[in-house]
Amino acid sequence: MKKIILAPDSFKGTMNSITICCIMEDVIKRHFSSAEIIKVPVADGGEGTIDCFLEAVGGEKINVRIKGPYFEEIDACYGILPDGNTAIIEMAQAAGLPLVEGRMNPSITTTYGVGQLIIHAVARNCTNIIIGLGGSCTNDGGCGMAAAMGIRFYDHGGKLFVPTGKTLKEIAFIDTSARSKMLDECSITAMCDVNNSFCGPNGAAFVFAPQKGADEKMVHELDDNLQYLESIIKSQLKINIAELPSAGAAGGMGGGVVAFLNARLMSGIETVLATTHFDSILDGADLVFTGEGKIDTQSLSGKVVIGVAERAAKKQVPVIAVVGDIGDDIDGIYPKGVTAVVSINRVAVPFEAARKRCKKDLSLTVDTIMRLLNIRQ
Amino acid sequence: MKKIILAPDSFKGTMNSITICCIMEDVIKRHFSSAEIIKVPVADGGEGTIDCFLEAVGGEKINVRIKGPYFEEIDACYGILPDGNTAIIEMAQAAGLPLVEGRMNPSITTTYGVGQLIIHAVARNCTNIIIGLGGSCTNDGGCGMAAAMGIRFYDHGGKLFVPTGKTLKEIAFIDTSARSKMLDECSITAMCDVNNSFCGPNGAAFVFAPQKGADEKMVHELDDNLQYLESIIKSQLKINIAELPSAGAAGGMGGGVVAFLNARLMSGIETVLATTHFDSILDGADLVFTGEGKIDTQSLSGKVVIGVAERAAKKQVPVIAVVGDIGDDIDGIYPKGVTAVVSINRVAVPFEAARKRCKKDLSLTVDTIMRLLNIRQ
Repeated sequence: MKKIILAPDSFKGTMNSITICCIMEDVIKRHFSSAEIIKVPVADGGEGTIDCFLEAVGGEKINVRIKGPYFEEIDACYGILPDGNTAIIEMAQAAGLPLVEGRMNPSITTTYGVGQLIIHAVARNCTNIIIGLGGSCTNDGGCGMAAAMGIRFYDHGGKLFVPTGKTLKEIAFIDTSARSKMLDECSITAMCDVNNSFCGPNGAAFVFAPQKGADEKMVHELDDNLQYLESIIKSQLKINIAELPSAGAAGGMGGGVVAFLNARLMSGIETVLATTHFDSILDGADLVFTGEGKIDTQSLSGKVVIGVAERAAKKQVPVIAVVGDIGDDIDGIYPKGVTAVVSINRVAVPFEAARKRCKKDLSLTVDTIMRLLNIRQ
Repeated sequence: MKKIILAPDSFKGTMNSITICCIMEDVIKRHFSSAEIIKVPVADGGEGTIDCFLEAVGGEKINVRIKGPYFEEIDACYGILPDGNTAIIEMAQAAGLPLVEGRMNPSITTTYGVGQLIIHAVARNCTNIIIGLGGSCTNDGGCGMAAAMGIRFYDHGGKLFVPTGKTLKEIAFIDTSARSKMLDECSITAMCDVNNSFCGPNGAAFVFAPQKGADEKMVHELDDNLQYLESIIKSQLKINIAELPSAGAAGGMGGGVVAFLNARLMSGIETVLATTHFDSILDGADLVFTGEGKIDTQSLSGKVVIGVAERAAKKQVPVIAVVGDIGDDIDGIYPKGVTAVVSINRVAVPFEAARKRCKKDLSLTVDTIMRLLNIRQ
């Protein structure tokens, strides 16, 4: 084993993907001390996305003073990859739930700071902008972000304002003429892994606003307002986000980046694989480790393990998926390029007990795999 | 992979070792259809011991009509291995707990039938007698067995009788002069895996009689009686079983086979490995699978996995232990010859849920191992 790639998803609720990579690397080094180990911790667009990309390909963090969810000044950062051209923006830096701990309110919080981060990166000559959606405390359909980038929202009295979840209905006119011209040169990708519509029963407000602090009444109001925004985007900007999958991601930010930034929406794993040039990384690799918290029939459609495996299969690199639980009937995973699936469970205990020992179990499980791989080498 | 040996212990409470071997064989055949697979399901001396030996090396079952635990006539069997010389006697056939379902009573049940089985085998010219101790419903210190082989027990009135747990104290004189002469030519081995003394707090009565139906009063009486038997064996037969480890196995049968048969006591795994000529089986093997229900620090001293591994290590054959739970701090197992330990747990659920799915989990786990072994071959 000369070159081993580690590309795991996080194990939801127990370990993030960087932690998993580090544990795996530690163990593998004990068995193959001279192996080149390349860590590609997979980000989903939420908190930790910048760190994942920097861990995978290097780069630097740029600190910026921007507006937080309540328009207050906060310190945030984004990442620039070694190409000097690619910026990794993490929405949670400007509008993340941890920023409003104890004062959650999706009707008055803003994504304004997200727009500031983008503008800052663009001003530094980044033309490839990746925005991680997820972990947001907002429900403004991305209007705050748009405002920060020069898009003007006027109310029915002709007054300029920055709409939030509560005030979307007050938008009478959207003027995009002053949108930063630099954006026109940019390729903008928004990472998100949810498939919620912009509004309606499966939309941003109904599905996500409750965990952002909205009561039932507020949820209905937020949904009404998103519906209004959707219609005004359609009538004035001539963009239809009604049928757009993922438009409801991050309080409607999915729809917002499409309407205001002409971004494309992409799954976390596809964005990571493309941005890290995963296909090139695979050249000469002997083995890929991937994994997720639970592998099941759902995993067969476009999640991390399959995304990694399909690419590895094309280059005949074996893929071992190390996971928490293994669901039933996962045999369909092997034709996709997964060589073997190994659970980290080592004792028959319920999840609440298993989660407390997951790091040690992961380490010991990778150790066991390396021992098995050493047989007959 | 041309030759693979399967030598697992049972998984207590879930799968016997023959079932485990069959599941493993099924899966391995799917991956290496032309491999020679040798099954050595490990017996512990209890119920199923004959089947394990016959599965491992072949041979035949001999049906015999003997006396059961209540001196009633029953059908039983023993095994003769292909050498025509080795008999496998299973104590449970003549004095097993299932034979007294609903009428357990260790004070009046007998091991007489065990002696009959031995005599039958010896009469067929078997000179290598292996007696599996375990799963018994008796507490007679092997006196019933001894009586069947010609040893005479006289009570204080000079009357011949067959002592049981309740009447051991009535033994006044033990006359071994009429013991079957054929036994003198035999090598007799008793398999047992417990380390209980003949009597006392750690002895047969206190530790095992309750699960054979004894109440507290009976336990004390049975222990007193074993103590009396121990002393009379010492004074009359000049054999000291007081310090003998395992003398308390199977209602004192451990002590009885030593005192009345001059047998040697041996662990189940050592007996299996010797009798199946495991060292020869290992020649040319590519891989050994072993396993047990739970591997832990206790496993490091003389249990199945270690017994198998130590022998395999001498011939540089890799050993994979497939187990239910993996205890903490088992690293000491690797220097003993175990290459890797793999748990069959695939989901974080408590044992009661895990046991219901153990067969499928075992099958899928062996499948995963074969997939891993196929990497780079």
